[in-house]
Amino acid sequence: MPAPISTPLDPADQSLVAGVLARQLRPLAKAITLIESQREDHQARAQKVLEALLPHTGGAMRVGISGVPGVGKSTFIEALGLYLIEQGLRVAVLAVDPSSSVTGGSILGDKTRMELLSQNPAAFIRPSPSACSLGGVAEKTRETMLVCEASGFDVIIVETVGVGQSETAVAGMTDIFCLLQLPNAGDDLQAIKKGIMEIADLIVINKADIDAGAAMRAKAQIKTALHMLRPASPNWTVPVLTLSALQKQGIADFWKAVCDYREALGASGEFAAKRRHQALAWMWEMIDSGLRSRFRSHPRVREELPALARAVEEGDTTPAAAAFRLLGHLQS
Amino acid sequence: MPAPISTPLDPADQSLVAGVLARQLRPLAKAITLIESQREDHQARAQKVLEALLPHTGGAMRVGISGVPGVGKSTFIEALGLYLIEQGLRVAVLAVDPSSSVTGGSILGDKTRMELLSQNPAAFIRPSPSACSLGGVAEKTRETMLVCEASGFDVIIVETVGVGQSETAVAGMTDIFCLLQLPNAGDDLQAIKKGIMEIADLIVINKADIDAGAAMRAKAQIKTALHMLRPASPNWTVPVLTLSALQKQGIADFWKAVCDYREALGASGEFAAKRRHQALAWMWEMIDSGLRSRFRSHPRVREELPALARAVEEGDTTPAAAAFRLLGHLQS
Repeated sequence: MPAPISTPLDPADQSLVAGVLARQLRPLAKAITLIESQREDHQARAQKVLEALLPHTGGAMRVGISGVPGVGKSTFIEALGLYLIEQGLRVAVLAVDPSSSVTGGSILGDKTRMELLSQNPAAFIRPSPSACSLGGVAEKTRETMLVCEASGFDVIIVETVGVGQSETAVAGMTDIFCLLQLPNAGDDLQAIKKGIMEIADLIVINKADIDAGAAMRAKAQIKTALHMLRPASPNWTVPVLTLSALQKQGIADFWKAVCDYREALGASGEFAAKRRHQALAWMWEMIDSGLRSRFRSHPRVREELPALARAVEEGDTTPAAAAFRLLGHLQS
Repeated sequence: MPAPISTPLDPADQSLVAGVLARQLRPLAKAITLIESQREDHQARAQKVLEALLPHTGGAMRVGISGVPGVGKSTFIEALGLYLIEQGLRVAVLAVDPSSSVTGGSILGDKTRMELLSQNPAAFIRPSPSACSLGGVAEKTRETMLVCEASGFDVIIVETVGVGQSETAVAGMTDIFCLLQLPNAGDDLQAIKKGIMEIADLIVINKADIDAGAAMRAKAQIKTALHMLRPASPNWTVPVLTLSALQKQGIADFWKAVCDYREALGASGEFAAKRRHQALAWMWEMIDSGLRSRFRSHPRVREELPALARAVEEGDTTPAAAAFRLLGHLQS
């Protein structure tokens, strides 16, 4: 492999790396702030810090949690986090919220949402980074996840709300993608429509304590839908669990299902293959985004693009001719 | 607008253009063959021919037809085509079949499938082009559509089967996207799942003569699903029609719905805006694909990509560092 980095870490970043590896929270937070910074020199330093931490990553179970507002994600994640800590595990909670750059964030904006968990020394909660694009938000979260892994967290929970394509991004960085549903007719149809049910590895019907009958009906409905939506994987049949995060009922069963998943996919080699595939897909996404931004910043392209785009819109030239002409400028 | 073409058409291609505009079928077929050719000199000539034809395009109604194998697409398109010809219109039938490069094509492979229509002088039927990618197949079909328009066809029907993302491609090149469904429970769920129902402007339940009751139930189900799936457009509510292509029942109603759509969206300006937006989206797709292929063919990228991709997969480097390094080669 060609060495991607030629210059060594500066001493300040060396001690940052050492602190992260020593499981200290302050260096962890500082490393994440470096990753989230938009400044170019910070970005360069962040990449070096990440390279140094990489050999120590990969040890955590990466759990994605999605669900519409009101489904009880915070309550569920707090209950799950406290349960895992009871089992002796350290838990990090991150978020991908593409609305955060505009609105200041709709999830994990403050830690009071998960009061008990945020006060626990074995937990680390970080709100969504803000960035100009979903791709940017997701990439920073993915890199933050790696830093948390290097810092010895056993479980990384990545939370997202149903905004834009954020579910796909979270499913693309986690080992298991869990969808929280309400025991409502129509909620499952929404999830089918948005293609979320299709990418879910585990489905949880929360608030099952309120109306047990409705929860059982929802479960049956979702099972039927899953059956029709996709062929059963040779290694995994998507379970549909009912639980009550508020009553702390069903949390242990949920975690058992996650462990079953890891075991089933681990045995067949699918687990490791999925991580390799995810990393490669991230690389290509960053390459495509880089190519597009270079293209747009080329002087001749900047000069001609507006008029050519207008000509294409008006049918005065073909999309192919316009694309060909603009791409031709890159050679000179 | 910067003139995209500097050299004039050669005499042979000038007579090709004249023949297409004179509504002669031989030059039309020859122009399409030029468009479908993979040879670079043919591609350059094809783009010039297209530029010359462009001022004469845009006059047809572009109708996309999708549906799974067995739904009766051929029978429907033949019945619709013959009906339109009876109304004094000329009809072209094209296809987007991404499997055609591999299998030789699963739709429109031979004209015997629509025997009466193919023998009619007011009809022109062209099987799917074969190309290495769906993007390639779709772009050639889109350009073929423009040639047919310049040749005076009033209606262009673009057919596709449910393979890959071909529905999205066809919806992206037509004015109205029609989904054919069977009166089966589960068929609509498949369409919801694949996101096709969401992009449909018109839904048709075919074979309604076999079991009228089942067709009515399917209609009600689909209407409910449509209601839940998306907010009603200010200008258009997606109709669900029942018909029998075999019995030639409901074809006139179908065409009336297409005309209603054109009128409703035309009045609000949405129709023209949709075409402008489609052309621009095609341009960007071709730019992205061009950028990616240039990137891959850069000598340093070709040299380093395999090892770096492996390093990313194995977690020896981050996707960001690998992408950054590879993109860096483009500057030199």
